[in-house]
Amino acid sequence: MGLPINSGLNLYEKHRKGIKNLITDVKGVKVGNVTLQRENVNTGVTVVFPHEGNVFQDKVMASSAILNGFGKSMGLIQVEELGTIETPIIMTNTLSIGTAATALTKYMLEQNNDIGITTGTVNCLVTECNDGRLNDIRGLHITEEDVLKALNSPSEYFEEGAVGSGTGMCCLGLKGGLGSASRLVNVDGQEFTIGALVMSNFGSSGNLIIGGDHMGIKIKGVQDIKKDEGSIIIIIATDIPLSERQLKRVARRAAISLGRTGSYMGNGSGDVAIAFTTANRVPHYSTKDILETKMFFDDSIDKIFEASVEAVEEAIISSLYHAKTTVGYLEEVKGLRDYL
Amino acid sequence: MGLPINSGLNLYEKHRKGIKNLITDVKGVKVGNVTLQRENVNTGVTVVFPHEGNVFQDKVMASSAILNGFGKSMGLIQVEELGTIETPIIMTNTLSIGTAATALTKYMLEQNNDIGITTGTVNCLVTECNDGRLNDIRGLHITEEDVLKALNSPSEYFEEGAVGSGTGMCCLGLKGGLGSASRLVNVDGQEFTIGALVMSNFGSSGNLIIGGDHMGIKIKGVQDIKKDEGSIIIIIATDIPLSERQLKRVARRAAISLGRTGSYMGNGSGDVAIAFTTANRVPHYSTKDILETKMFFDDSIDKIFEASVEAVEEAIISSLYHAKTTVGYLEEVKGLRDYL
Amino acid sequence: MGLPINSGLNLYEKHRKGIKNLITDVKGVKVGNVTLQRENVNTGVTVVFPHEGNVFQDKVMASSAILNGFGKSMGLIQVEELGTIETPIIMTNTLSIGTAATALTKYMLEQNNDIGITTGTVNCLVTECNDGRLNDIRGLHITEEDVLKALNSPSEYFEEGAVGSGTGMCCLGLKGGLGSASRLVNVDGQEFTIGALVMSNFGSSGNLIIGGDHMGIKIKGVQDIKKDEGSIIIIIATDIPLSERQLKRVARRAAISLGRTGSYMGNGSGDVAIAFTTANRVPHYSTKDILETKMFFDDSIDKIFEASVEAVEEAIISSLYHAKTTVGYLEEVKGLRDYL
Amino acid sequence: MGLPINSGLNLYEKHRKGIKNLITDVKGVKVGNVTLQRENVNTGVTVVFPHEGNVFQDKVMASSAILNGFGKSMGLIQVEELGTIETPIIMTNTLSIGTAATALTKYMLEQNNDIGITTGTVNCLVTECNDGRLNDIRGLHITEEDVLKALNSPSEYFEEGAVGSGTGMCCLGLKGGLGSASRLVNVDGQEFTIGALVMSNFGSSGNLIIGGDHMGIKIKGVQDIKKDEGSIIIIIATDIPLSERQLKRVARRAAISLGRTGSYMGNGSGDVAIAFTTANRVPHYSTKDILETKMFFDDSIDKIFEASVEAVEEAIISSLYHAKTTVGYLEEVKGLRDYL
Repeated sequence: MGLPINSGLNLYEKHRKGIKNLITDVKGVKVGNVTLQRENVNTGVTVVFPHEGNVFQDKVMASSAILNGFGKSMGLIQVEELGTIETPIIMTNTLSIGTAATALTKYMLEQNNDIGITTGTVNCLVTECNDGRLNDIRGLHITEEDVLKALNSPSEYFEEGAVGSGTGMCCLGLKGGLGSASRLVNVDGQEFTIGALVMSNFGSSGNLIIGGDHMGIKIKGVQDIKKDEGSIIIIIATDIPLSERQLKRVARRAAISLGRTGSYMGNGSGDVAIAFTTANRVPHYSTKDILETKMFFDDSIDKIFEASVEAVEEAIISSLYHAKTTVGYLEEVKGLRDYL
Repeated sequence: MGLPINSGLNLYEKHRKGIKNLITDVKGVKVGNVTLQRENVNTGVTVVFPHEGNVFQDKVMASSAILNGFGKSMGLIQVEELGTIETPIIMTNTLSIGTAATALTKYMLEQNNDIGITTGTVNCLVTECNDGRLNDIRGLHITEEDVLKALNSPSEYFEEGAVGSGTGMCCLGLKGGLGSASRLVNVDGQEFTIGALVMSNFGSSGNLIIGGDHMGIKIKGVQDIKKDEGSIIIIIATDIPLSERQLKRVARRAAISLGRTGSYMGNGSGDVAIAFTTANRVPHYSTKDILETKMFFDDSIDKIFEASVEAVEEAIISSLYHAKTTVGYLEEVKGLRDYL
Repeated sequence: MGLPINSGLNLYEKHRKGIKNLITDVKGVKVGNVTLQRENVNTGVTVVFPHEGNVFQDKVMASSAILNGFGKSMGLIQVEELGTIETPIIMTNTLSIGTAATALTKYMLEQNNDIGITTGTVNCLVTECNDGRLNDIRGLHITEEDVLKALNSPSEYFEEGAVGSGTGMCCLGLKGGLGSASRLVNVDGQEFTIGALVMSNFGSSGNLIIGGDHMGIKIKGVQDIKKDEGSIIIIIATDIPLSERQLKRVARRAAISLGRTGSYMGNGSGDVAIAFTTANRVPHYSTKDILETKMFFDDSIDKIFEASVEAVEEAIISSLYHAKTTVGYLEEVKGLRDYL
Repeated sequence: MGLPINSGLNLYEKHRKGIKNLITDVKGVKVGNVTLQRENVNTGVTVVFPHEGNVFQDKVMASSAILNGFGKSMGLIQVEELGTIETPIIMTNTLSIGTAATALTKYMLEQNNDIGITTGTVNCLVTECNDGRLNDIRGLHITEEDVLKALNSPSEYFEEGAVGSGTGMCCLGLKGGLGSASRLVNVDGQEFTIGALVMSNFGSSGNLIIGGDHMGIKIKGVQDIKKDEGSIIIIIATDIPLSERQLKRVARRAAISLGRTGSYMGNGSGDVAIAFTTANRVPHYSTKDILETKMFFDDSIDKIFEASVEAVEEAIISSLYHAKTTVGYLEEVKGLRDYL
């Protein structure tokens, strides 16, 4: 999906989009959503599956960038040390990461009898944003069953906007949520894909920029946010063989996309980007000490940076475009389309 | 406690010990333990309380050092960004951090009505080691009630060894667990304290060093650990006014203590040090933008480094000294005192 | 100076500008320039003086952010460890940093008889960009005398554009160079200043953005740069009392400004931001171990972030606005004003 | 060389030594030394050559660890970003890094006509320690010719102790200098090598530990060093294929070796470890975007950590063993062998 052609919103684009214009254009990547929406409750769970197999046994190379560390995501320390992701990636609300971690642990134990017995433990990757404006976050409404349901619903197609973990998110004074986009890049004569998925919840009212247009100062009646107490989780997936170091370089460029949509990486905004590649796998068990892997020639990497920055920028704007006006726990937050 | 005078084990010591020779020699710091010990279950929860008040409203300045990131601790990203700790620090087993996080969240919500409503969320600090040799870690035996019980039992005095979160830990082929020690330092004519608490679970059989003596190669019949799949959590507390940057410097020196006790910071060992000072507080609310604070003159900081390295080294050896032989889930692990 | 009111270029601005609209609006900060311009030679030296006294004896609190580390700047490691700057900051061309370091060393030794005798050495801060398109950089034309001349010409007023170290720089396919701007912020009822100085040398042709307008794709005949092999050095000065940690937060936000002017932080671009405050000083000698200092209440820091991002963005565009078309070593590079 | 069998000093050793017991046991690695020793002058230059070819065209994969950043080494930022070393590594005294950088730049320009014309610039790697006790460091006695001479004298064999850049160094109250050692490791049935070279200049009198023995408190009449104002540069070379991430892991373990020889990573000690592998090369030019590379299976990496920690520990003690009593600029400093 991403931003529809007829959205009336023009981003600067240099690179072609993937077929679905979703993170799932990267082969094997899937997304699962569970949405909780009832009186006072507007929250949910989103899961990104790096590939279709057992991620613990067959890890994907990965890295992350903590753009602003006012966040509670768990699992990133080990990603940094080992350069791999070994579970599906969960996104949910801030106070539910404990529940999500427990459910993900049980899911991983079920799939892997060796964990905790003949091998070590497992590094659950759980990310979060605070949906407390629209959701009774103190109520801890997400259950382990909700998380397991999301873990059991991987799909190539998924909705954007106020769904899954994006259900209660707000962004730049408007309704935020899930957004996705993808770009194609030619590498050594072959076509590769970079996809982005964001859970947008950052920014102050008045700061929104779309395609260079400071729309934020023009639209009235939006949510009154003076301090950026939101956050954004950015997942970047690709089938291009990049090393951990290069995936970190890609993840760090998400700051460029943030800048172009109106973020100042505000104090209270936990801005975290995670990048992984399906093209470099690291096995949990190996009889050999030396493993073959691939990296990118850094001198040619600018096109990867550009395509990734574009995908993340579109994913953010797409999250706003798809998220509809929502009446929630503490207030009503308008959708961008009310202003188009 | 720390290492008793008549232990027969001699560490090199330059700085005087505190009265209790525990981390709680730092005024206001308390520790709470809950121990779970029954068939197949050898695990628990330890809580470090930075001071006696409401830590969310009155945060302590802090920093951390990820010495080896094969670990699942949560909450450290925000400590790095904001330089503060705003909850008690929990230690438990690796697969129970979700449960611990949920319980700690509920505890914090109970104490602070503003969280998630008129202010942002809360950054729960939960650390872990893998006690899977002695504990049926897959059983997820720790409950929210266990965690809350530990959160409700702050004490100036506490046992070391196989108690609390240390119940099921193993270290250098021997029974590990909780260990603590403290040192006194003269600063500007006044006496200040540095205290350390460790949950020791690292190292391979044969590598143990005590006071320079490579005891590991001499003692037989210990647990056969070829790969260091353990971890160590190191908490350093002080009442000396240090800045976040300086607390990080202190935390990073824990690697020296590790080296002196036989660690190589093995691949699978999540070695994490957290340092905080009770002398620099950061309020959650402030009517002023500019806050007075204190820092240390770096050119005089060597004595702090030395005292801290000593305290951590003794805390590690003390954890071994106090931990008794334990018959657990997958094996029996001997205590150091069986060899003295 | 910064961008003149009648420039015809409109940036989004929320915060008021300082009187000179230069980094030197921060009281005590001065800049010195030496320009070398003759056949094949287009290069120079720029010096930023943090205050008017002896910077070695009376250091300023500081931090830096390596936005993209394809750069050769020296001195940043110690800034990170100690949180201070103890020399004037030099900017020059990449291959001349050795010469600049030697000259700065001699200048510091001359001013401080204790260095290397009764106290340790000195951490020279020297930054660089590659001006090899317009300057015969292989010729190493900058001499120690040139550097000393710049070190002996501190001034509150200075030109922007193709002067000093900016003489031979190119940016986004156009002539780059020095640019500066400042912003005012109200803190606890008092007016404080944030100033920025950049040496702009980054970006690919076609990527220029001014105030949201993708001008890069509209202007023709510019320098043909496909790979971003440039760099940018960004100096941010303020009289607001910020801690080292907070200065790093400010420095990292320069990525937002880069994004808004067309940078993707290209592979070959050494993008480095350095931030210091004149309001927190650290003495070289102290009879006391504990020092009083000040920090900012993080929950109110968004205005600092915004003002700083604005100042850096304007400084970049101002560098382009003031830099005139230059015929240099390997080619001619047009100034932005040729297109306005 | 390393520590001779009959030294009477016993380190704990688990891994076999290489044939020469020098860093040059790693095939292709060479070392060049220039020693300046005359009235008041005790200094020099040491160069480590990563391989015998053109290092700019054929870079070695590398990483570094800043164990304590009170140091002035240059070039490390780019090593971190790109994961490669592209020049020989220079070691010299602190105030001569400018001269060394200029000489190294000229040497690289001479060998590579493309630098600064058809390709970018070059990242000179220059490291340092402060030899101001034994050397008139303010005199800047090292000339570009001295540096070029060292750059033109690569050798498989070299002396340890008070030679090259180690000429004027002091360590733990004794004469320090160059030290080297190597270890062999079996990987996938083949023998590989890890070598270490140190320039030792760290530590306080009284803190020396050799093989667990706190010798520092026993030996009298040594240099009176209360504050650790020294530094150590540690170079680790290997022919084992490690990724940049893994080389950083190896470099960080040098802290263990430091701890075992008596360092507390003192405030004023610039402790820097650089690790590179000759087994992963990155070309300066490539017609392909995707490059084949190799990494190590992290789960088996403990043996690499151990061997590397051992080699660095022995290299430090070997530097002390070989360095003879030296009468220098400000004082006389005794060699370790005066006490054996």
